[in-house]
Amino acid sequence: MNTSSREFVNVNLDDRSYPIIIGEGIIKEASQLIDPLQLGKKKIIVTDQNLASTHLVSLREALKNGGHDTAEIILKSGEQTKSISEFSLLINSILELGIDRETCLIALGGGVVGDIAGFAASTVLRGINLIQIPTSLVAQVDSSVGGKTAINTPQGKNLVGTFYQPRLVIADIKSLKTLPIRELLSGYAEIVKYGLLGDVIFFEWLEEHGPKIISGNPVAQAKAVATSCRSKASIVKKDEREAGERALLNLGHTFGHAFEIETGFSEKLIHGEAVSIGMAMAFDLSVRLGLCPKEDANRVKGHLKKIGLPISLKSIQGIDWNSDRLISHMARDKKVRDGNITFILANGIGKAFICENVQMADVKAIINKDLNA
Amino acid sequence: MNTSSREFVNVNLDDRSYPIIIGEGIIKEASQLIDPLQLGKKKIIVTDQNLASTHLVSLREALKNGGHDTAEIILKSGEQTKSISEFSLLINSILELGIDRETCLIALGGGVVGDIAGFAASTVLRGINLIQIPTSLVAQVDSSVGGKTAINTPQGKNLVGTFYQPRLVIADIKSLKTLPIRELLSGYAEIVKYGLLGDVIFFEWLEEHGPKIISGNPVAQAKAVATSCRSKASIVKKDEREAGERALLNLGHTFGHAFEIETGFSEKLIHGEAVSIGMAMAFDLSVRLGLCPKEDANRVKGHLKKIGLPISLKSIQGIDWNSDRLISHMARDKKVRDGNITFILANGIGKAFICENVQMADVKAIINKDLNA
Repeated sequence: MNTSSREFVNVNLDDRSYPIIIGEGIIKEASQLIDPLQLGKKKIIVTDQNLASTHLVSLREALKNGGHDTAEIILKSGEQTKSISEFSLLINSILELGIDRETCLIALGGGVVGDIAGFAASTVLRGINLIQIPTSLVAQVDSSVGGKTAINTPQGKNLVGTFYQPRLVIADIKSLKTLPIRELLSGYAEIVKYGLLGDVIFFEWLEEHGPKIISGNPVAQAKAVATSCRSKASIVKKDEREAGERALLNLGHTFGHAFEIETGFSEKLIHGEAVSIGMAMAFDLSVRLGLCPKEDANRVKGHLKKIGLPISLKSIQGIDWNSDRLISHMARDKKVRDGNITFILANGIGKAFICENVQMADVKAIINKDLNA
Repeated sequence: MNTSSREFVNVNLDDRSYPIIIGEGIIKEASQLIDPLQLGKKKIIVTDQNLASTHLVSLREALKNGGHDTAEIILKSGEQTKSISEFSLLINSILELGIDRETCLIALGGGVVGDIAGFAASTVLRGINLIQIPTSLVAQVDSSVGGKTAINTPQGKNLVGTFYQPRLVIADIKSLKTLPIRELLSGYAEIVKYGLLGDVIFFEWLEEHGPKIISGNPVAQAKAVATSCRSKASIVKKDEREAGERALLNLGHTFGHAFEIETGFSEKLIHGEAVSIGMAMAFDLSVRLGLCPKEDANRVKGHLKKIGLPISLKSIQGIDWNSDRLISHMARDKKVRDGNITFILANGIGKAFICENVQMADVKAIINKDLNA
């Protein structure tokens, strides 16, 4: 057991508080990590086809050795799994197992598995115990922390879901080893976000250590995951149900979601890539509005580009980008209050804020500037 | 405006507290009652076909006169509407209206509308504002109070849903005038439940005034609804998420749900009728176990019978009742913890308690005694 890179983060939410445990190879210790919670015997592992022959084997073994009564539900891989029809199949599979309220659902996988399995856990019997074991970097630093669950609908991404906190999050750094580099970079974009939001020192640390995170150094990865989770936990504690400050976490995401809708949530542009371009544009928009020094925007874009993330729509092949269409996607996004579009802008690196009265003409100008550069 | 029968109940749940306003003809005052909440302009009324030409007209008029921007979604009437496929259609209809988080969904109808519309309100955008306007007696005294939302699945009733509190409940006693007598009696069974649970004085009041409630006296109806809501609110306050004491509200329901599963949630046996028989059996079971005086059980059954509610399965025509099958339904019910079936029993009228170790042989004996009487 390598404890040198073990990190702990506590998410403080009164009676819904829970720990995040971050370390290398800790899926194998699942039983010891879960037992102190004193949940019911039955554990339902929900995962996807990609993990069935890898991490699922380790987790099954660990729980079996610990005397747990396990069942497994294996979903199809991919974003299209986050549909209401797959949700319907999933809740039927769970209910067919004859569960009770002490039953624990373990979501093993990336953001898709975490989101749909979390939504299922929050609604079957009006809520059973949930443990998240995120295996992608984006899930470890973002979607497994803070209790958002979701599915997609024809109207957009994550438009249906709940706020529902897990009892425990186990982030095994070892699972990052099997991730394609593109997925790793996608998660890295979310890590950079926490620096840009409110922690310039973390951003500086990333400028120095970012390449180690991408090349697989477990100590750097664990530190980056822990720092990101701590940052998110602190924001979620202040605003669990996203009535205010939690919106800061949407830095780069209002742009990003519009790009993802336009590319049909396909492999053409994955989540973190969309967020990376979105963060670059959020800083450019802040500069345009006279809110942020140009050097800061250039430094943000410089780091994202150097690490290997896209910062322009033009680098995404095969899409006929159109600023009007992108803006209409944003107008349908859920971060809208009585018709005003809310953006997360910044006064500089580490100084993000919520801006509720951004003019659409300025947003359009930023997109067109990128497309015509 | 008749204020003689106006009653107010406050449901105290910290930042999720809300008022229940009970009175005759108050749907017409909807705008004045809703405006103080300062919600978004957009109001989406979800109702069913049965109400489209009656209460919906009054509510639409009231909101229109008050300057609200309203939209309407009309569901099919009946329990089969509480399915995942209808839920899917409903959330699509809501999202197609281009909502934001300030949008308010108004559930106008009986338990079916309240349950599915409440579930939709709790999950679209991870929760929008919800106002319940229950129009059936059972919804006024039970399903609109306490924040349970639900849909049914092939495995059983209400197995998927959320805990989600409305911002306001408007219980218009006038809407009871158009209810069929059978529906009124069904709601009355839930009212009796509150007396049996913990309020012998209320039960005595019902013994005297029950017939007036059924014959349509608005003052008696308002008092019965308010007392029931107050009783439920007090229990929900102590145990919002049904970890303990809230289970008391299941008096008669573990039996009752099994009967409803067996009759396919059909017109052969409606909810309150199933609960009435279930309460009679819960008292008989309590007597059998030496926990309750026989006179109390007889008094309960005497009152239910006198008012016109069934107290025996034999009075339900056309069903081949079988105690083993009923018990297997109970074993799949959600009120099960690690295999032990929990029943609500009573030490007498007004003295209900949670009993977690009831032997199935005793339950079976009570059912068989009824079937062979």
